[in-house]
Amino acid sequence: MSNQSVNPRTGEKFGPVFMSTSPEAINEIISQSVAAHTLWSATSPKERARGLGAIADALDSQTEALVDIADEETGLGRVRLSGEVARTTFQLRAFASTLEEGRFVSDEIDAAVAGAPPQGHPKFVRTVRGIGPVAVFGASNFPFAFSTLGGDTASALAAGCSVVVKAHPAHPQTAQLTFDIARAALSSTGAPTAVISLVHGFECGKTLVTDSRISAGAFTGSRAGGRALFDLAQARKYPIPFYGELGSVNPVVVLKSALDDPKTFVTAYLDSLLMGNGQFCTNPSVLFIPESNEFVQELHTQIVLREAAPFLSEATKKLHDSNRAQLLSSIDAVICQGKPVSESGFFSSALVAVVKAKDLAQGLTDIGEECFGPTGVVISYSSVEQVIEILSEMEGALSGSLFALFHDADVSRVLDSLASMCGRVAFNAWPTGVAVTYGQHHGGPYPASTSSLHTSVGTHAITRFLRPVTFQGLPDVL
Amino acid sequence: MSNQSVNPRTGEKFGPVFMSTSPEAINEIISQSVAAHTLWSATSPKERARGLGAIADALDSQTEALVDIADEETGLGRVRLSGEVARTTFQLRAFASTLEEGRFVSDEIDAAVAGAPPQGHPKFVRTVRGIGPVAVFGASNFPFAFSTLGGDTASALAAGCSVVVKAHPAHPQTAQLTFDIARAALSSTGAPTAVISLVHGFECGKTLVTDSRISAGAFTGSRAGGRALFDLAQARKYPIPFYGELGSVNPVVVLKSALDDPKTFVTAYLDSLLMGNGQFCTNPSVLFIPESNEFVQELHTQIVLREAAPFLSEATKKLHDSNRAQLLSSIDAVICQGKPVSESGFFSSALVAVVKAKDLAQGLTDIGEECFGPTGVVISYSSVEQVIEILSEMEGALSGSLFALFHDADVSRVLDSLASMCGRVAFNAWPTGVAVTYGQHHGGPYPASTSSLHTSVGTHAITRFLRPVTFQGLPDVL
Repeated sequence: MSNQSVNPRTGEKFGPVFMSTSPEAINEIISQSVAAHTLWSATSPKERARGLGAIADALDSQTEALVDIADEETGLGRVRLSGEVARTTFQLRAFASTLEEGRFVSDEIDAAVAGAPPQGHPKFVRTVRGIGPVAVFGASNFPFAFSTLGGDTASALAAGCSVVVKAHPAHPQTAQLTFDIARAALSSTGAPTAVISLVHGFECGKTLVTDSRISAGAFTGSRAGGRALFDLAQARKYPIPFYGELGSVNPVVVLKSALDDPKTFVTAYLDSLLMGNGQFCTNPSVLFIPESNEFVQELHTQIVLREAAPFLSEATKKLHDSNRAQLLSSIDAVICQGKPVSESGFFSSALVAVVKAKDLAQGLTDIGEECFGPTGVVISYSSVEQVIEILSEMEGALSGSLFALFHDADVSRVLDSLASMCGRVAFNAWPTGVAVTYGQHHGGPYPASTSSLHTSVGTHAITRFLRPVTFQGLPDVL
Repeated sequence: MSNQSVNPRTGEKFGPVFMSTSPEAINEIISQSVAAHTLWSATSPKERARGLGAIADALDSQTEALVDIADEETGLGRVRLSGEVARTTFQLRAFASTLEEGRFVSDEIDAAVAGAPPQGHPKFVRTVRGIGPVAVFGASNFPFAFSTLGGDTASALAAGCSVVVKAHPAHPQTAQLTFDIARAALSSTGAPTAVISLVHGFECGKTLVTDSRISAGAFTGSRAGGRALFDLAQARKYPIPFYGELGSVNPVVVLKSALDDPKTFVTAYLDSLLMGNGQFCTNPSVLFIPESNEFVQELHTQIVLREAAPFLSEATKKLHDSNRAQLLSSIDAVICQGKPVSESGFFSSALVAVVKAKDLAQGLTDIGEECFGPTGVVISYSSVEQVIEILSEMEGALSGSLFALFHDADVSRVLDSLASMCGRVAFNAWPTGVAVTYGQHHGGPYPASTSSLHTSVGTHAITRFLRPVTFQGLPDVL
């Protein structure tokens, strides 16, 4: 099979044709990745930090070229994409700093205790090592930060693992350019060339996660695709961890105490909802507001002025349109719609469906499916109990937000409800915009993540790829 | 179905008949466990520490009664079982201390950084919470330390999770007595009664891991049984972590520099191999020695004096005998055998098969299956390369040992080989006897563990049941 870039603004193909990497070539790539892993995992954290820093510098120096091609392939716009390159290199350097500080990777010394068991024991040194070669799947919606040299790759490299990246078909040229720059930069620091590799083609996904030499997988994307790969990874003779972020319907709860200025609030809501054409896993998918005609009126007024932005691909648009139709057929909602769209390219108008909480009894499962794109659901409630009940029936989410004055009596129980289903709870903040920092947690109960213990953003992400090995009774000289 | 205790020394049934817990009863038990989890997970670490301490005190005070019944059910002997109760209560207190110190459970504060992203970010507080009700499966070979109130239960309770224990059919009375003591003690501290529950019966396993209200599973036992449960847990609509320790063939490598006294060495080897009738997951299953007639002669001389000890159950003996027959049919070995056994009860003579490394080419897969019981394989090698090659083809193991003088030139590469396949590498120490301490790692690549990132012994075990939730931008007052 082959694949070519498509400009989502026009629907036209352009650039080189990428042939799917053949099974024979993947086999050879994995062999080299195993050999590179052995060398790379034996390097010191400081050496790996140098490698990550070199990649970051090289990507920064090529930002223009990277943004040019990514914008043509994704239609996400130069401003957003420049920011994303900066975020990506910041992320690489964050892992480099983590390694330099020895965080997560330092040996833990448990000194000998004299006496008989259970109290007495010899000295233990708990070390960690890269789990083995990792298969990373590029995401459609973040051509840099969650793709070739994104957080999964950065954290796996930091852990001492070699990485085989499967390019996302929506931006193969961006993937290839990022990879070429990164591999050259990493090699220039003395790292084995095959520490990172790139493959193209749909079939590669299955080949990678079922190959016995691959030790872990990391994925951000659709629930169907991610679950299929997860299932393959778990069904192996030797199952491997497969860290999948499979989408999220993120609740945002607004208490009356925070809704004194509906106009400003609606603007902020639409900004978050329609950012990147709504193609964010942290999109504020479901907004809970106290019943308010003024809010709905304001929504109508503002959304009609919003221009449609292109989808990442035709497939993304089709899936979105189908999910939206399904959503609208299942709930009795007031529809607020954005500007009509032109014929060419991959566009759909923004849309927010407003529904009353009390009318949702039958349709709750329908708002529970992610509608990846410029579509939102507003649930107007008459009591906080309604909100809590609906939250308790929703699936696991990456993020939940609460807008309220902090002394509002309902704050505490809404936060508890959100925390019981989300990986991150934001107070008076929209869910979009996920900071890359130590305290971040970008995960959550399934389907937000296939492993709710782990994050794919922030420096804790490195722990996904570190396998502990304890040494018992080793003389200090060793 | 029903189940009754069997005395493995005589093969005779005794004591009450335990009916399998009915599906309706399990359903009710899980409902109560969910409610108890909500309350328990909201307690402070110090409160949970008090609960664990109360259980430990109560079990200590009932050691006599516990050992009486466990000895009758398992035949493991009073000395070993008294030690195991002490280990179990030490373990409960170790988790209590961990909670008191706030280790693993304290909030991590990531202060706000001024400025635009990616550098700037709001304040994050990274918290952890109990993942949800945990299903714990009692193990046959440790009626206390890996059963009802063993490490899995202790770590899950410490994490703030409620626990539903499935009693092991080989020691239902021990399970019931342990449970009764623990539940009363825990309740006396004010904890909800249903924080721990006990069910009996084979079918309960499937019911528990497939119930949508159970959030994690923990298991120590056979590969077949553990894998079946793991598969069920992963195939759920909402997959859950299933921490299975599925057995291990543990390599012990002896370099020439450590073999100056074969007589003493063989004694120590047989002590480790035959401890608890060899029914340890850390049994030194495969011993690599430099070719030495003296060692083999010494093995013959000493093993014939070793008395057989009872198996834990008839099923354990049957599986062992079958695996041993399979092993012996596939390798060309010199057989060293222990004292013959009597007819009654569940006994088999100790046996060590001595085979040359160079003859193993065809039979390597056969020594790769665990032979759970008083059976060992000794591989005599002519070069360290042979050892390293065989290690590289073995499956993941809980433990690997190296006996050598520390300045031996081969030490470093053998340690590396062991570390690449084991969770714990012991230097000049036998693998049996797993200390309960912070630095311990009792896990390893599959099948040693279904999750090589995690340990089932030592205080890090708590992390298996802690789900992170990050709070973003929360005012200090909240």
